[in-house]
Amino acid sequence: MTDQTPLSSRPRVLSGMRPTGRLHLGNYMGALYNWVQLQHEYDCFFFIADLHALTTEYFDPSGIPASSDDVILDFLAAGLDPNLCTLFVQQDVPAHSELHTLLSMITPVTWLERVPTYKDQQEQLKEKDLATYGFLGYPLLQSADILLYQPKYVPVGKDQEAHVEITREIARRFNQLYPGSFSMAEGAAPWELEAVKKTARKLANDSKKEHFTPHELIAAAPQTKLKSGYGTETILPVPEVLLTPSPKLPGTDGRKMSKSYGNTIMLADPEPEVRAKLKTMVTDPARIRRTDTGNPDVCPVFDLHRVFSTVEIQEKAAEGCRTAGIGCIECKGWLADAVVDVLAPIQQRRAHYEANPALVEEILTAGAAKARARATQTMHEVREVMGLRQPRP
Amino acid sequence: MTDQTPLSSRPRVLSGMRPTGRLHLGNYMGALYNWVQLQHEYDCFFFIADLHALTTEYFDPSGIPASSDDVILDFLAAGLDPNLCTLFVQQDVPAHSELHTLLSMITPVTWLERVPTYKDQQEQLKEKDLATYGFLGYPLLQSADILLYQPKYVPVGKDQEAHVEITREIARRFNQLYPGSFSMAEGAAPWELEAVKKTARKLANDSKKEHFTPHELIAAAPQTKLKSGYGTETILPVPEVLLTPSPKLPGTDGRKMSKSYGNTIMLADPEPEVRAKLKTMVTDPARIRRTDTGNPDVCPVFDLHRVFSTVEIQEKAAEGCRTAGIGCIECKGWLADAVVDVLAPIQQRRAHYEANPALVEEILTAGAAKARARATQTMHEVREVMGLRQPRP
Repeated sequence: MTDQTPLSSRPRVLSGMRPTGRLHLGNYMGALYNWVQLQHEYDCFFFIADLHALTTEYFDPSGIPASSDDVILDFLAAGLDPNLCTLFVQQDVPAHSELHTLLSMITPVTWLERVPTYKDQQEQLKEKDLATYGFLGYPLLQSADILLYQPKYVPVGKDQEAHVEITREIARRFNQLYPGSFSMAEGAAPWELEAVKKTARKLANDSKKEHFTPHELIAAAPQTKLKSGYGTETILPVPEVLLTPSPKLPGTDGRKMSKSYGNTIMLADPEPEVRAKLKTMVTDPARIRRTDTGNPDVCPVFDLHRVFSTVEIQEKAAEGCRTAGIGCIECKGWLADAVVDVLAPIQQRRAHYEANPALVEEILTAGAAKARARATQTMHEVREVMGLRQPRP
Repeated sequence: MTDQTPLSSRPRVLSGMRPTGRLHLGNYMGALYNWVQLQHEYDCFFFIADLHALTTEYFDPSGIPASSDDVILDFLAAGLDPNLCTLFVQQDVPAHSELHTLLSMITPVTWLERVPTYKDQQEQLKEKDLATYGFLGYPLLQSADILLYQPKYVPVGKDQEAHVEITREIARRFNQLYPGSFSMAEGAAPWELEAVKKTARKLANDSKKEHFTPHELIAAAPQTKLKSGYGTETILPVPEVLLTPSPKLPGTDGRKMSKSYGNTIMLADPEPEVRAKLKTMVTDPARIRRTDTGNPDVCPVFDLHRVFSTVEIQEKAAEGCRTAGIGCIECKGWLADAVVDVLAPIQQRRAHYEANPALVEEILTAGAAKARARATQTMHEVREVMGLRQPRP
């Protein structure tokens, strides 16, 4: 269902991924699969968060470029289309650091210390020294990444919803400190803008000053719409969570599919490897012999069926399992068929882009330019509303 | 004494000043006067730290541009010559934020919490909410400002020496994490570089990888000079303190001259105002009547004589004071003559630049371009040694 609205006038969506190297089915279903749908309806910006990788990999960042390359190949392989969405690498856009630094000034340290993952991750990654200023600022950098593109939506799964909350808090604080009275943002009625400009001109005349805070303007012009209506046109709109499906995706050992558990099926795994991995996947532990009946509801293999197989296959597999009509090997074979079907076009696209590194470079260069242009506009508005001067050419 | 070495091959010097508005004699003698001397001997970069102003003024930054304008006029008025040094505004160079963000990844939070001014200032400026991430990161931003220009020296007064220490610590930590094995920095012997490149080529061949950490290279090539000699060519040289005179400069009430005490003589004060301010300046409190003898060593007026008057006037004034041969009014008149003599050329230059805002803008635009070019080079080397990719064009 492709929307016919021009891309740039659709609601903007922003999301990023850390450069963790080649992606697996869990990454695909949790994010990429949704992004591919979103690119048809929204003005999507998707990026590789290579600065974020430094928060935990600073002691040896030399693997980051190669990991970024792998992730971008998997972005393209999954079906993200550079004609429909903007794909870029974070470090190609210096404004991420600039907005991060500006927002650092208004963000209470306690907000960052309070983020649950802060202490958790320090604990979990004890062997790394994560007591750094940058690691503490991770959620702020993430907020800057998001707000820099003034998106309407941030697509996240149910379990990630809380992570967007600090971004929303920071946006609210920014808007409270710097009400967007001079916003040229879409939707601002021209006559309101005229009234504000008139007030500013009068104030400039009276006071011989050239710059005013929104507070000064509000004080000087209570009769304009500045106070109520106008202030609602904010420079950093509070982004909304766009809940996307993130199905439970077990790995071959039954635990959550995750690189660190070594239980993944990679997007780039060739068919024999996929079949071999699934063949040894754990099942309902109570079904020991071929003749035992099983319970699909507690079987990790069936969890994957639910995601990848057709309803008919699901029904056939569940029925066969409950009645011992089929063995696990047969059930896993059907699943493997479905997974291979999903992976085939992904791997075809990957092969295409892998064989054309210059094309990938072109896509990222164009994406960087588009992202920089968008970010520059936001930074312009941010500086304007803060009363700062624009950088010299 | 003008050195004939071309500017760019002289040792580099970096310093900055917060945009506090018009400057006073204390600012002049503590910094600008020294900078004017240094520009003849070093490749000097002097900047307005307008990002820093945000750490304490974030709740209303609208005054920062005008304050920056005043400081830059006083820079030029004091005799900083755009043909001899590079004058620029921090926010014109996005790499300050970029290096700040990169260095944040390697800087322990405790180093920042330990900076003595952190708790002090929070205490002193209680009415402002300074419990922000940006205020905590102030010394790190300052370190990035300095290291971004790879200076040999940072000119500071005796009392400021400790402030440079955290910058030196951060540089050391960077160099330890990312030994400058690939540095193209001046002074690296070509054969050393060749040996390193050869090792890298061999490693690339053996491992099919393209990027290596210095650690990997060292492990692979213990026979090269990489380990000892080479590692000394660092990307972020640890800057040295260049101790500059910062004479004790009392304000009109005898306390340290400071804007917050309201006891200043401004660089832009017209002659009558200078004379009026000095006339009411406090003196040796024991000399009450004209006929009392006084003690120049405890008299704030005499402290100013020591800085601004000729030795003859100093001797005449001290003698007259000790013998009650002159009154305080006469002594202050002589001081006023000296101060007015210092201020006259400064004020002439200020008037010239004030009347030519386009010229000032031109100077700052050229300065921004020069600073950006220098900063870009450092960022290139920083990314290279960290093993990160260079940003796309």
